[in-house]
Amino acid sequence: MQKPSIPKGTRDFGPAQVARRQHIFNVIRRTFESFGFAPLETPTLENLSVLTGKYGDEGDQLLFKVLNSGDFAKDVTAADLEVGSKALLPKVAEKGLRYDLTVPFARYVAMNRGTLTFPFKRYQMQPVWRADRPQRGRYREFYQCDADVVGTDSLLCEAEIVLMMAQVLNGLGLNDFTIKINHRGVLHAIFQSLDKEGITKSASFNLAGKTWGYAAMESSLFVAIDKLDKIGREGVTKELLERGFSAANIETLFALLTVEGSYEVKLQRLLAGFVTAGVEPDGPRPDAADEEAAANYRGLTELAQVRDLLVASGFKQFDRLEFDPTLARGLSYYTGCIFEVKINNVQMGSVSGGGRYDNLTGSFGLPGVSGVGFSFGVDRLYDCLEALDLFTVTGETPTRCLITHFDAASGRAALPLLAQLRAAGIPAELYPDAKKLGVQFKYADAKGIPLVLIMGPEEVATGVVKVKIMQTGVERVLPLGEVVAALTAE
Amino acid sequence: MQKPSIPKGTRDFGPAQVARRQHIFNVIRRTFESFGFAPLETPTLENLSVLTGKYGDEGDQLLFKVLNSGDFAKDVTAADLEVGSKALLPKVAEKGLRYDLTVPFARYVAMNRGTLTFPFKRYQMQPVWRADRPQRGRYREFYQCDADVVGTDSLLCEAEIVLMMAQVLNGLGLNDFTIKINHRGVLHAIFQSLDKEGITKSASFNLAGKTWGYAAMESSLFVAIDKLDKIGREGVTKELLERGFSAANIETLFALLTVEGSYEVKLQRLLAGFVTAGVEPDGPRPDAADEEAAANYRGLTELAQVRDLLVASGFKQFDRLEFDPTLARGLSYYTGCIFEVKINNVQMGSVSGGGRYDNLTGSFGLPGVSGVGFSFGVDRLYDCLEALDLFTVTGETPTRCLITHFDAASGRAALPLLAQLRAAGIPAELYPDAKKLGVQFKYADAKGIPLVLIMGPEEVATGVVKVKIMQTGVERVLPLGEVVAALTAE
Repeated sequence: MQKPSIPKGTRDFGPAQVARRQHIFNVIRRTFESFGFAPLETPTLENLSVLTGKYGDEGDQLLFKVLNSGDFAKDVTAADLEVGSKALLPKVAEKGLRYDLTVPFARYVAMNRGTLTFPFKRYQMQPVWRADRPQRGRYREFYQCDADVVGTDSLLCEAEIVLMMAQVLNGLGLNDFTIKINHRGVLHAIFQSLDKEGITKSASFNLAGKTWGYAAMESSLFVAIDKLDKIGREGVTKELLERGFSAANIETLFALLTVEGSYEVKLQRLLAGFVTAGVEPDGPRPDAADEEAAANYRGLTELAQVRDLLVASGFKQFDRLEFDPTLARGLSYYTGCIFEVKINNVQMGSVSGGGRYDNLTGSFGLPGVSGVGFSFGVDRLYDCLEALDLFTVTGETPTRCLITHFDAASGRAALPLLAQLRAAGIPAELYPDAKKLGVQFKYADAKGIPLVLIMGPEEVATGVVKVKIMQTGVERVLPLGEVVAALTAE
Repeated sequence: MQKPSIPKGTRDFGPAQVARRQHIFNVIRRTFESFGFAPLETPTLENLSVLTGKYGDEGDQLLFKVLNSGDFAKDVTAADLEVGSKALLPKVAEKGLRYDLTVPFARYVAMNRGTLTFPFKRYQMQPVWRADRPQRGRYREFYQCDADVVGTDSLLCEAEIVLMMAQVLNGLGLNDFTIKINHRGVLHAIFQSLDKEGITKSASFNLAGKTWGYAAMESSLFVAIDKLDKIGREGVTKELLERGFSAANIETLFALLTVEGSYEVKLQRLLAGFVTAGVEPDGPRPDAADEEAAANYRGLTELAQVRDLLVASGFKQFDRLEFDPTLARGLSYYTGCIFEVKINNVQMGSVSGGGRYDNLTGSFGLPGVSGVGFSFGVDRLYDCLEALDLFTVTGETPTRCLITHFDAASGRAALPLLAQLRAAGIPAELYPDAKKLGVQFKYADAKGIPLVLIMGPEEVATGVVKVKIMQTGVERVLPLGEVVAALTAE
């Protein structure tokens, strides 16, 4: 006889947990829908040709692959076995489990380009799977809730992401949050502010035999900055020195990254910093007449515009919106604004994040589709709500009302009432077995059923029902014909 | 550049489809909850030790197995490769995808036996995966919606299954349905009615070198009867002859299987048939004083009791409930009542089925837990509703109201109204780009947005909004301050 278990990093959700998770899903769904996002669902199984290469080498490792059905090993040769798992993989598996909701969305848009109406706004709330090492707040099977707009570069979308993030967190009662915003253009301009002499002459990269252009150095800068939270300024400095950035450059870098003040003051200080560093705008400067400031100053301009749209939309929580020039977000496909949300009074990674991308569907044959999107991590939101004790008490059952009885005859006599309660929208049960009243009450108590009706032979004979409110213990006797109306009114 | 695709037997669900599917889920969920069933969710990934051997050899073949992560081939030897896939499997995969909702439920009950309150009533609505050959109405990834009660043998549960089946189908507008009911005890008694001399002396089974007891012959009878729908009386007769049943026995069999009349008349005629055949009751006969008629007559007694409970519950659709002695249902774990539902005016397999089992959790170390459950196939319900054109028209978006505008300034001026609409519970969008009004209207039209508001410079200057009802083309002009109230009232 086997002892049953579930795979590590996965979970069962019992009735109370499902009810609590549904509460989170409902708040998110209502928010997404009120902003005009329409639901999409994609299959759990995707072709590995769609998934592989989209999440970097590490991501490819973490993909769950599904064995081909039937005689899966028929094409494997002894030579493959010699080489190992890498040679075997393409011969034994052609499907994998959804790793995120973004790539399936991009695939869907590319496959249905002919019939979709753009801008296309979709939300998606589905589980994803990663063969990651399970730890606190990290599971192998977990839900993501994404909303994306593709087919417009309007900054209204960015402003609405901030509105939606705030609305969901407020709706859940998670009031102590910080929405961090930055722009890849700001990071680009920060890179441009560095002394080029102090970058490319790095010996360590030449040794690796690779040609490191500025683009690669810029990426490596983002990757290092992204670790600031984890390894601190000292750690980032060490890493950047190793990567071939001069000490003077690192000083310039931190001077820009650590500007202080409000959202608007930081924008102004960075602008001054870039001008001082002699950063060339690729287009007109933002103080010029033309509204469109290109490349090097685009980040600052757009961040200012997003803030302006939030003001016009009546957004009031600017104390919870922080322009953070150190926010980098590892994923390389972002090209504009980037976002990340933390709950301040809980020790927990970010509960939401996102950003704008310019070429999400390019690898599926549909280039030049700009979009912006973001995602909520439901499992982390759940853990935050639990840590802060913000869940309302949920019973183990939807049942509002249990009918107890003395014997088969009184139980049978209760059946019309049971049907009436349900027809009136009151979830109800008749205790199914002829057991002692104490057992039946214990059942109601253990499941958190708030109301118990008692049908004994006496009640049946006189046409009444005893109603007991479990929480208070208050009992009253009602004529059979008035029970449903009385309970509906409550 | 790759052409993206999805694995065969899987599907994307766009906005309109998701909305329609949610409608089905909502009707089922409301019904389950009104009967006191609580939600449970189990992981997609289960250990193969839990799944394997539960669904027969064919089921084991159809399980999707997930490759171990990392260097999955490290323990595979050349000798394994020689033997083939069967030898490789346990070394490369220890997890699989959920194949149904029953086995995970049994595992959950066994794992949580100490904390659950019995009777435990759970429902579960999740996808399952089978590496089956895809065809009409059969997918590799599809949803099941199960409801089960374990820990009671009360026939009230069986009666409530009929009530729930009818409530869901009525709720969906699928009015032309037949709920078929039978009882394994009836099939057992039919087997007992056969002449034993005409069963075991079969040469074909002796040749196979196996000892075929009566239990195995009884199973093989069920399996053959189960095919009556597909291969007809002639085909079943041929199969039974091959399996060692005499022609006389087959005649007796069909005389019993094809009794005619109402639910009650069939019960009486089968009772008479069993008595004539000299079937020995394992307990008192159903016409004896003792209510509990065991084994051979238990089926008829319980079917009569289920009908009686339905009458007492006010069930009115007896014309849609058919006692069908030929209903066998392949799955071997059923021990009591069995159910199956068909939609009569659509060419489609059964949309729901279930039955009572006595030892579901036995293989997980928890014997003797009686339970009864049933399942809806959402995908088949969907196909039926579509075939009968019973879906109400659904737009491609939840948005009720699109605000159109003439330029960035009038768009910006619309932002407070946009926020007010959403706060009033009206899903709304502002067209994000400064495009021609015609383009914006086309967008509303393509997505099925019912209301379009027009904010031009003139409207902004005079503080009014033009409201257009898309379906009728009717336009009216409202003061800005009255728009939300007017739209909320509608």
